Amino acid sequence: VSLRPGAFRGRSLLAPGDCTPEEWDALLALAARGKREGLPAACTGQRLVNLFAAPSLRTRVSMELAMGELGGTAVSLTPGADAWTLETRDGAVMDGAAPEHVREAAGALGAMAHGLAVRSFPVTPDPAAELEDVVLHAYARHAGVPVTNLESPSAHPMQALADALTLREVLGTTVGQPVLLTWAPHVKRLPLAVPLSFLHAAAVCGCAIRVAAPAGWALPASRLSALRALAESRGGSLATTTDQAAAADGVRVVYAKSWAPTAPEAGDMDRRWMVDAALMARTRGAAFLHCLPVRRNVVVADAVLDSPAARVAQLAGNRLHTARAWLYAWLGTDR
Amino acid sequence: VSLRPGAFRGRSLLAPGDCTPEEWDALLALAARGKREGLPAACTGQRLVNLFAAPSLRTRVSMELAMGELGGTAVSLTPGADAWTLETRDGAVMDGAAPEHVREAAGALGAMAHGLAVRSFPVTPDPAAELEDVVLHAYARHAGVPVTNLESPSAHPMQALADALTLREVLGTTVGQPVLLTWAPHVKRLPLAVPLSFLHAAAVCGCAIRVAAPAGWALPASRLSALRALAESRGGSLATTTDQAAAADGVRVVYAKSWAPTAPEAGDMDRRWMVDAALMARTRGAAFLHCLPVRRNVVVADAVLDSPAARVAQLAGNRLHTARAWLYAWLGTDR
Amino acid sequence: VSLRPGAFRGRSLLAPGDCTPEEWDALLALAARGKREGLPAACTGQRLVNLFAAPSLRTRVSMELAMGELGGTAVSLTPGADAWTLETRDGAVMDGAAPEHVREAAGALGAMAHGLAVRSFPVTPDPAAELEDVVLHAYARHAGVPVTNLESPSAHPMQALADALTLREVLGTTVGQPVLLTWAPHVKRLPLAVPLSFLHAAAVCGCAIRVAAPAGWALPASRLSALRALAESRGGSLATTTDQAAAADGVRVVYAKSWAPTAPEAGDMDRRWMVDAALMARTRGAAFLHCLPVRRNVVVADAVLDSPAARVAQLAGNRLHTARAWLYAWLGTDR
Repeated sequence: VSLRPGAFRGRSLLAPGDCTPEEWDALLALAARGKREGLPAACTGQRLVNLFAAPSLRTRVSMELAMGELGGTAVSLTPGADAWTLETRDGAVMDGAAPEHVREAAGALGAMAHGLAVRSFPVTPDPAAELEDVVLHAYARHAGVPVTNLESPSAHPMQALADALTLREVLGTTVGQPVLLTWAPHVKRLPLAVPLSFLHAAAVCGCAIRVAAPAGWALPASRLSALRALAESRGGSLATTTDQAAAADGVRVVYAKSWAPTAPEAGDMDRRWMVDAALMARTRGAAFLHCLPVRRNVVVADAVLDSPAARVAQLAGNRLHTARAWLYAWLGTDR
Repeated sequence: VSLRPGAFRGRSLLAPGDCTPEEWDALLALAARGKREGLPAACTGQRLVNLFAAPSLRTRVSMELAMGELGGTAVSLTPGADAWTLETRDGAVMDGAAPEHVREAAGALGAMAHGLAVRSFPVTPDPAAELEDVVLHAYARHAGVPVTNLESPSAHPMQALADALTLREVLGTTVGQPVLLTWAPHVKRLPLAVPLSFLHAAAVCGCAIRVAAPAGWALPASRLSALRALAESRGGSLATTTDQAAAADGVRVVYAKSWAPTAPEAGDMDRRWMVDAALMARTRGAAFLHCLPVRRNVVVADAVLDSPAARVAQLAGNRLHTARAWLYAWLGTDR
Repeated sequence: VSLRPGAFRGRSLLAPGDCTPEEWDALLALAARGKREGLPAACTGQRLVNLFAAPSLRTRVSMELAMGELGGTAVSLTPGADAWTLETRDGAVMDGAAPEHVREAAGALGAMAHGLAVRSFPVTPDPAAELEDVVLHAYARHAGVPVTNLESPSAHPMQALADALTLREVLGTTVGQPVLLTWAPHVKRLPLAVPLSFLHAAAVCGCAIRVAAPAGWALPASRLSALRALAESRGGSLATTTDQAAAADGVRVVYAKSWAPTAPEAGDMDRRWMVDAALMARTRGAAFLHCLPVRRNVVVADAVLDSPAARVAQLAGNRLHTARAWLYAWLGTDR
């Protein structure tokens, strides 16, 4: 069934699960149609504010280009090169560095726009609080308009939509197809948003998902069991392993991403987890995906990225098409 | 009488007084109409450059969203996170840090746009020069196109328009209604632009204005007498006091703002001037207004900001509606 | 012959010579027509990404305003205040500061846009590599869509188009008219992009070009001979000298620009090369041009910049009109 403009009007998209699998199907069909033939300028007269508490390239470009093409107006705020100093604690006496509280920032921006899109980042070193996306939820509570998540510590639904569209383009029928999410080495400790969101996309697609990560880097068990249930409800499955090489056997997609260690016993980063030609040779002609930016010869070898197996630019381009579909359904009008 | 598109074409808006009270009435009526039902895309084909010599959130967002919604194109320049190094002295040998003179920056940007909007900031430690807005006037002299002030050391007409619209929404009939502008504590020494501009808005609205500030923080007498005359011409009044509590008795609006001391005898900042529930209790159910950003529990207590009395998000939202009205009248065309 | 929308679709513009002199004529005629009467919104539905690896004022403003006026959507990325850390070396193990390789940045941005416009800057201290514009060419190789150069170490075609339009406006018939490009003092060592590009513009216009520079600051001989051949093919000429004063005799345009020394024997910068009233007095009522930003009383004296001879704002304004013409021909559609 085809989505009309504004079908999701008034709703927030804070995590991939805020849309049902059936709504994902409809969004992905709309994105594919828009990629083929464009979409009508359904957002004329609509105002969007994108707020980035951390730098952004693909997300900002995709949101601004998509909103412009739909006839609407988008403004992006990217204060500073690092995290913006915004007070989030209730009851704080604000005589320090932070000149504004998230309550007022959200309320003021929401009062000028039909929707607010936010890239939030952790303000506390507490990993459990991060998984709750507390700052994002504070924006959603105080904005007065619906909020779209442009990446929080634990969720990146706009990336997940592009992941799913790309899985469909690469695999055709996705149900039951074996795909691998593998941890990869990196120089920094990165959040869980992208790996968890890719797993949501692959689960919605009903893939036979394998997750490979070294001991000490396991994804949170409660999240994995929810994702497994989702995959199974869509005809797929989800299994985890610490054996990267075996996990690659016969898969049709390799999605690489680094994330921070999740257990105290995690040792030094193992550079042998870099995705290379030998690993790809074990697959069934798999496509290589990564959300970008990617560090060459750390996360993945040149030989993979420069081969036809790499579909990273295709995935990046799909950020535009899925963002446009979401904005059409979220802020479109029938007028 | 209703304003046609481009009614103020060719004019600059450097200070609130550059429009007559009758023109304010017309702009506010247009803003209220636009807030209800939108405005036609009267700025199609028009080009606006916003230049921010200091960071901006609400002002940039409101100008960009409003211009986009009116069908025009806006570009904002926000060089650096702090003041931009622009030479303003005549005759300078420019072999230091400043790579460009305000004469060329204004002329070049003006040559590409139908209008230039400028947030300028002091370049000299001379308070008297600040009150003259010398940098802003240099832009206006050299731009070759009309200039709108997006905040200078002594004037913020776009904020004043939103203040006035909000006063009307809160008070209904504004003439003779008691409103309080109170100085408030802050960690920084802030300029006079917002308090002076709010007073202009309240004077145009014919309010019975009270200004409360500690000894040493009095607003410039020459400005106050001009504002008093304006208020009286519109059926209002203006009185000053150093007794904040008494000044709050029975008022219907409390507008809080900090500004720098204006007299050498000013002592330490008095934290007891923070607006709190006790002060609000003396009012006649007053609305609390602030231009934002606001430091909680320094300028104003949580108990006030989190109560229904706080209308700060409404005021911020009105920045969009008054900016749209101004742009419609300033850069609109009848085509 | 008039250019239709999209006449140059699918082509890159990396250097002024990527368009033939006849194509320059057509672009300049289109720019002049657009300046008089505007151009149709031929870029509706088109997406442009501007990537600035170094700060920009006039170039960004002109590209964004022009694309908006043509009905398209432009996004500008200006990461950081200085050069963006982007890996350009093939085979690098990217465990250092650079988080992304130019291959992926170009591919990802290209996948979201119909065209990519890039300001690239040197990544190596090797002057020979700079003259080859290696980073720009890497973008062009990996973008997957056509690329427009917004200034590279050796070429600035968008500035050159504005230079040529201004020469035509100032001179009327340009063929055989004497014009001077003079080196000027500066506090920094600047690239060759602007002087070489102005020479291309003047050569296309068939001017009788004189290039004055101190010994040690001579422009590369191979470039000069190619530019001389181009000038001669259009009815002009090109001669070089180290005698600035004599070179000014009777010219109708003085174009001033500083550039870095090109020979080891270059001594200290000679401040007497500043363009002043005495130099202008030797000309035949010449117009003074500079690409801006310009350091007053270092590059050129106040007495020149503040006289009617100065046409720097007119030249800056022409950046808009020539950018609009290029975008119309590059990304326009007939739909």
